[in-house]
Amino acid sequence: MRGAGCVRVLGLDPGLQHTGWGVIECGRDGRLSYVASGVVSTVTAEALAERLCALHRGLASLFCSWSPDEAAVEHTYMNKNAGAALKLGQARGVVLLAPVLAGVPVSEYQAMEVKRAVVGTGHAEKGQVEAMVKRLLPGAEIRRADAADALAVAICHAHHRATRIALARARGAVPA
Amino acid sequence: MRGAGCVRVLGLDPGLQHTGWGVIECGRDGRLSYVASGVVSTVTAEALAERLCALHRGLASLFCSWSPDEAAVEHTYMNKNAGAALKLGQARGVVLLAPVLAGVPVSEYQAMEVKRAVVGTGHAEKGQVEAMVKRLLPGAEIRRADAADALAVAICHAHHRATRIALARARGAVPA
Repeated sequence: MRGAGCVRVLGLDPGLQHTGWGVIECGRDGRLSYVASGVVSTVTAEALAERLCALHRGLASLFCSWSPDEAAVEHTYMNKNAGAALKLGQARGVVLLAPVLAGVPVSEYQAMEVKRAVVGTGHAEKGQVEAMVKRLLPGAEIRRADAADALAVAICHAHHRATRIALARARGAVPA
Repeated sequence: MRGAGCVRVLGLDPGLQHTGWGVIECGRDGRLSYVASGVVSTVTAEALAERLCALHRGLASLFCSWSPDEAAVEHTYMNKNAGAALKLGQARGVVLLAPVLAGVPVSEYQAMEVKRAVVGTGHAEKGQVEAMVKRLLPGAEIRRADAADALAVAICHAHHRATRIALARARGAVPA
């Protein structure tokens, strides 16, 4: 059951083979709690268009099942070749489309911002991120690294939205 | 009005700012005819997710309006940087998704295959492709280069499907 005054955030870490997802709740007191996480996977042997469609349907069902209020997507920095970037981009396009179709506002965060929000430094290792996600979300059942990354994006968004609200309050735009 | 026994092909040339589209018909005698073409454009000032959604809706309305039997998408070879490839990939993912959601089979063709099918050489210039598209589709009203590229993909697909049918006939799989 969703807590009163809670905001539910869906974090997404795009990938053609595995798109990680993680749902958290941000309480009015700023406390974060784990709701669910997992991975939408596609079959490598299938045609690209079919895989993108499987990803699209998997994401649509997540929005139905978990009714998030806001979504956040990781913007992976690519220092790989153009071919790998094109492949990731195709999945990322489908991932970014899903929240808009579900009428959910979506924010994007650079991988460095996510690491900074979760670990405190933009140059953290993957293992450090996962360990901090588990500390920040006690009771989280994380089975895959992609799901941990998605939860990290959701946490990053929660921090940013808390800052935005605090700033708006300081300006008198939002009641305390 | 659609000719009897005709197959209608929608060609798509993906791009985040402008996605070219072109509809042609392939008659039973192998003759090609122009139906329509244009561009789905997105507003650069809008957020990426909103632009992808505008592209998605524009494409969905094309499938509604023109009821193509088959679709073909150009696979642009990227020798640019990874950032440009990621950007194109995002649009391409949304473009490839559209036919599957509309229940229309989709094929992909490399830019070189498209040039070879239309001009006869894989190293043709953009201008040569557009000129040949106009010769192959008399009466075509092409207002933008992106639309000409999309018609070229549709022509390429028409040639490939004719070859596939001829091969199947030779094997006795399809009645003449």
